[in-house]
Amino acid sequence: MNPKQLAGEKAVEFITEGMIVGLGTGSTVYFSIKKIGELVRNGFRIKAVCTSQATHELAHSLGIFILKMEEIEHVDLTIDGADEVDPNGHGIKGRWGALLFEKIVAVNSEKNIWVVDESKIVKKLGKFPLPVEVIPFGYRQVLDQFTQLGFNPVLKKNNGNIFQTDSGNYIINLNMGVIEDPLELNQTIKQIPGVVEHGLFPGIVNKVIIANDKDTRILEFR
Amino acid sequence: MNPKQLAGEKAVEFITEGMIVGLGTGSTVYFSIKKIGELVRNGFRIKAVCTSQATHELAHSLGIFILKMEEIEHVDLTIDGADEVDPNGHGIKGRWGALLFEKIVAVNSEKNIWVVDESKIVKKLGKFPLPVEVIPFGYRQVLDQFTQLGFNPVLKKNNGNIFQTDSGNYIINLNMGVIEDPLELNQTIKQIPGVVEHGLFPGIVNKVIIANDKDTRILEFR
Repeated sequence: MNPKQLAGEKAVEFITEGMIVGLGTGSTVYFSIKKIGELVRNGFRIKAVCTSQATHELAHSLGIFILKMEEIEHVDLTIDGADEVDPNGHGIKGRWGALLFEKIVAVNSEKNIWVVDESKIVKKLGKFPLPVEVIPFGYRQVLDQFTQLGFNPVLKKNNGNIFQTDSGNYIINLNMGVIEDPLELNQTIKQIPGVVEHGLFPGIVNKVIIANDKDTRILEFR
Repeated sequence: MNPKQLAGEKAVEFITEGMIVGLGTGSTVYFSIKKIGELVRNGFRIKAVCTSQATHELAHSLGIFILKMEEIEHVDLTIDGADEVDPNGHGIKGRWGALLFEKIVAVNSEKNIWVVDESKIVKKLGKFPLPVEVIPFGYRQVLDQFTQLGFNPVLKKNNGNIFQTDSGNYIINLNMGVIEDPLELNQTIKQIPGVVEHGLFPGIVNKVIIANDKDTRILEFR
């Protein structure tokens, strides 16, 4: 079976009836959402909050009951993907441009499960670019600052146009190589005026479900 | 003379021809901008970046040449107001809802001048609310977190509707009383996912021009 489907569907086993579930964004959690849709069609009752417009549309089309973040106090369980995960459960997320809502939902969730295929497991973070969401006003100065810090920033584009997030902000991808200290980097980046949020998720996930094309294994944290 | 006018006009003496000038937002810097408009009409050449839509409209109406932040590398001198300033030059700004652009312009300015009347000088910060700009998605959870931290948060409204910034975000005003450690609070608030920026400006200003109804005095920092 497709590893993404295996991991995505496995995570749904941890949802219990009545939960408020956070729905992530991406090609692996896609299969979680499809599976939840199937359960819901069979009468299983949950409510969901969505981390992107794309996920909202998918969940809506499957008949999943959707709440806004301002309608709830907290989320019981969030299922999301990740671009890479290290052995401490620190991760990088946001390749799909949804890192801001993903992080807001994640830090307000009782439990977080990430669903990934084996290729996402790394010894140290930094294999893929680290996305940073920035305010359009002054993005050039933030770019310059990242250049001075040696982070090799690249403004994310889409068919030649500047990519815009669901909040109307820009994404700057940092290509910084191996990240030795995710916790320190977390602070450094977020402190810069103009930075809204970034894709480093240190110490947030509780369970990582990893699939190859045959089976799944689970890493537990916290 | 009106102290706001005295302080506002005094600051303009520090502008030299050819500068890129950051224009703040508020009732004191209003007089700086009016004065700059007068000079420009008489042939004095400067270029400006604006920290709000309101300031943009005022500057434009006065014939001041306006640039976008993405068109420049840095700002030479920014003139802005402040809600309160302590003896170390730490300040709180943003009462007019423009703190995000104000901070982006300020940290990218070679020099910063604040123009205030005597009532803005405090022994310790915390006399006025501290505004925090937050993403609408998840603002309720940020409010809850501020409540748990004992910061007495109040969502800013305007005629009964939630106030929106020039970036479409919300403002939460914190009523926390005396702020003993502005540098620590700076980090604490900005690290919260959903927080875009806040009105604490620690260690940024170079010159504070303070006016009463007779004359001005200047505090120098850094």
